Amino acid sequence: MVKQAFTKKLLLLTIVSSLIIGIFLVDTLPSSPANAKTDYHNGKVKNVIFMIPDGFSSSYATNYRWYKGEESVMDSMLVGMMKTHSANSEVTDSAAAGTAMATGEKTNNGMISISPDGKELYTILEAAEDKGKATGLVATSTITHATPAVFASHVASRSNEEEIAPQLIENDVDVLLGGGKKFFSESLLEKAQKDGYKLVENRDKLANVQKTETDKLIGLFADNGMAPELDRDETDEPSLAEMTRKAIEVLQNNKNGFFLMVEGSQIDWAGHAHDPAWAMKDVEAFEKALQEAIHFAEMDQNTLVIVAGDHDTGGMSVGGYGKSSANIDILRNVTATGDFMASELNANRSNAHDIVKKYTNIDLTDKEVNRIIEAEKPATAINEIISERAIIGWTSTGHTGTDVPLYAFGPSSSLFSGLHDNTDLPKLIAKAMKIAF
Amino acid sequence: MVKQAFTKKLLLLTIVSSLIIGIFLVDTLPSSPANAKTDYHNGKVKNVIFMIPDGFSSSYATNYRWYKGEESVMDSMLVGMMKTHSANSEVTDSAAAGTAMATGEKTNNGMISISPDGKELYTILEAAEDKGKATGLVATSTITHATPAVFASHVASRSNEEEIAPQLIENDVDVLLGGGKKFFSESLLEKAQKDGYKLVENRDKLANVQKTETDKLIGLFADNGMAPELDRDETDEPSLAEMTRKAIEVLQNNKNGFFLMVEGSQIDWAGHAHDPAWAMKDVEAFEKALQEAIHFAEMDQNTLVIVAGDHDTGGMSVGGYGKSSANIDILRNVTATGDFMASELNANRSNAHDIVKKYTNIDLTDKEVNRIIEAEKPATAINEIISERAIIGWTSTGHTGTDVPLYAFGPSSSLFSGLHDNTDLPKLIAKAMKIAF
Repeated sequence: MVKQAFTKKLLLLTIVSSLIIGIFLVDTLPSSPANAKTDYHNGKVKNVIFMIPDGFSSSYATNYRWYKGEESVMDSMLVGMMKTHSANSEVTDSAAAGTAMATGEKTNNGMISISPDGKELYTILEAAEDKGKATGLVATSTITHATPAVFASHVASRSNEEEIAPQLIENDVDVLLGGGKKFFSESLLEKAQKDGYKLVENRDKLANVQKTETDKLIGLFADNGMAPELDRDETDEPSLAEMTRKAIEVLQNNKNGFFLMVEGSQIDWAGHAHDPAWAMKDVEAFEKALQEAIHFAEMDQNTLVIVAGDHDTGGMSVGGYGKSSANIDILRNVTATGDFMASELNANRSNAHDIVKKYTNIDLTDKEVNRIIEAEKPATAINEIISERAIIGWTSTGHTGTDVPLYAFGPSSSLFSGLHDNTDLPKLIAKAMKIAF
Repeated sequence: MVKQAFTKKLLLLTIVSSLIIGIFLVDTLPSSPANAKTDYHNGKVKNVIFMIPDGFSSSYATNYRWYKGEESVMDSMLVGMMKTHSANSEVTDSAAAGTAMATGEKTNNGMISISPDGKELYTILEAAEDKGKATGLVATSTITHATPAVFASHVASRSNEEEIAPQLIENDVDVLLGGGKKFFSESLLEKAQKDGYKLVENRDKLANVQKTETDKLIGLFADNGMAPELDRDETDEPSLAEMTRKAIEVLQNNKNGFFLMVEGSQIDWAGHAHDPAWAMKDVEAFEKALQEAIHFAEMDQNTLVIVAGDHDTGGMSVGGYGKSSANIDILRNVTATGDFMASELNANRSNAHDIVKKYTNIDLTDKEVNRIIEAEKPATAINEIISERAIIGWTSTGHTGTDVPLYAFGPSSSLFSGLHDNTDLPKLIAKAMKIAF
């Protein structure tokens, strides 16, 4: 009997130790390079930070690597690529792309989380909220612009920003930071403050918000879009990184976790304008915001960070014009957007050479000066000249439909490996957070 | 003593069963979507098929998906992306790109597996050969063109194709299939046949080669490059898929396994010419060759298939020209390249409308007809008109430097996940094959 009991104990030990050693083996399995960096922790996903660099495709990623001089934070997080088309076109706009990324459903260009036949589509932000999580939206555009709007409003046309503003408040999004003050009526902001929102309207006020002070924060830093990072007045507007850090601080008050969407809105605007310096500087601002997210995720260990552009803008290329090189270095010397430089031109544009020299360190040829003087839109001429000198090509003033890189960091990031449709993203985020969607 | 011996046996059982259960757990771990498709078998890598669609970037992948009407074979294999720059430029040529992908070392544009300071660089094909494996090169360009050349020759300039030809033979590459007959002298081909090569020069002869008949095969199907798939004379030249299938058959004779490189050479040429139908048809031909490789890999279970373009060509975009859609469907009706159509024009090009109608089903406007009549190069005008109608943009007649998608299938494919430099590929292939490199 003694021997039998001993044998039973040893058999039990066999099974238990098998399991322990098995688990040990699982934990020490060599993972892929991407997963080694991103799946460092098999923890559960309590928080999600979904970062959207609007208009960012592989050419932006490559050009930015040259601009920075080394691999970007995004580079270290690459797990796959994403298809971007909308329900009615090979080339999406940000409304349909955002709707896909927020709701898991394709819709027509221009529509904000409404299906082509007019039904309201449930969003991943709403699902997180229904699970008791805090939610936030941060953008450098108006906060009522297509990409933030799709997460917490439902309107037939993206241009109805007055209609979107009250929905963001009624939908009880806890943190709203960006531009678009003019779309929030005085009575709406009064109501919001009565409902517990703290309202801030400049960089200092945002910096002074204490985490313990409020669970709900609305920051409106410009009437329209905020300034491009190149032109930003630091005494007035916060950076995207500062907004992201503050959003995370406030959202952390909710013990159930949070869902935060952060948009680098103006990479897209720079692409539409063919302004490569604006694009690179706004990617840099986005990367700094991403660093805030990654820093938090590394500390927290229960935060998944996803990065995906919604589409390419401009058909940007690395090199172009039949040349066998690129010259992206020169963009590091550019300290203003083409729009800003054009605003500094005098009536007959006779100061074109000096203005461009002042903000780019480029000595224009006479031919280039004349091109600016004779241009219908001098900003366009300036941007095209800088693009040619940097050897960055463009195929469109609109969006293009190429697949975009997909990046992930943190627990469950391996779910995002491979090629995905944009509609997969909210479904995978919900799966990672273990919430109904 | 009896009890002690029993205890020892049980302890041994504990350890052994732990390991068995551990291994079982490892085998049943949920893998990522990409890995689920590609890492289906944890077998060892005996054979590698390295497939290079020259000039293929994410825009080609997306446009081809629309052309095909569904996901491509490449789509199902996406694991990451690859940087393409050369030692001396942000925008590589195929020689430097191929050298990186064959040797793991960056070199200057134009150089064939020679370092910038003139040293011969050891290639992954040579390493496989040194391990006793069979080796093969298949291309639709001349077989002495940059991309095949870098795997088995060392010359300072890619244009020295006469110098490359004998090196491919001396290097004892077992299977060589492609164009470039004019670079192989009669005496070289005689010597090759004495050394055991079977020589074939048309499609039928290739089809009739029996696997058991020879271990060494040289097929030269054109004096220069082979025909674009759109213009191929099926009575004369084999397809890329047929060459790939035959190469695999013959290489299988070696019981140590094989290394095969297959290039879809003319995707790049189509990109240089801005001929979107040529590009799509040659991607289709490449995909059919890839299907041959995957079919073999699925049967064999010890074959790793890697697919990566060496760079983008043309800065192709999906959409463009400021429009919000693309119209790739029309390319399915195109049955000849722009070059071929131009060759059918009469002296004053008065038949431009009819020729384009015949091969594209497009009714040109008078303005478009005049554009062809007045063009310096009528083929260019035809290609640009078709590009505009398909809404496919271009930024360059040369290459561009954007990161390209990276695809893998089979055992060890997860090694290729994430963002890699082109120099990583041969190192990872060697690691997968467990050969010194």
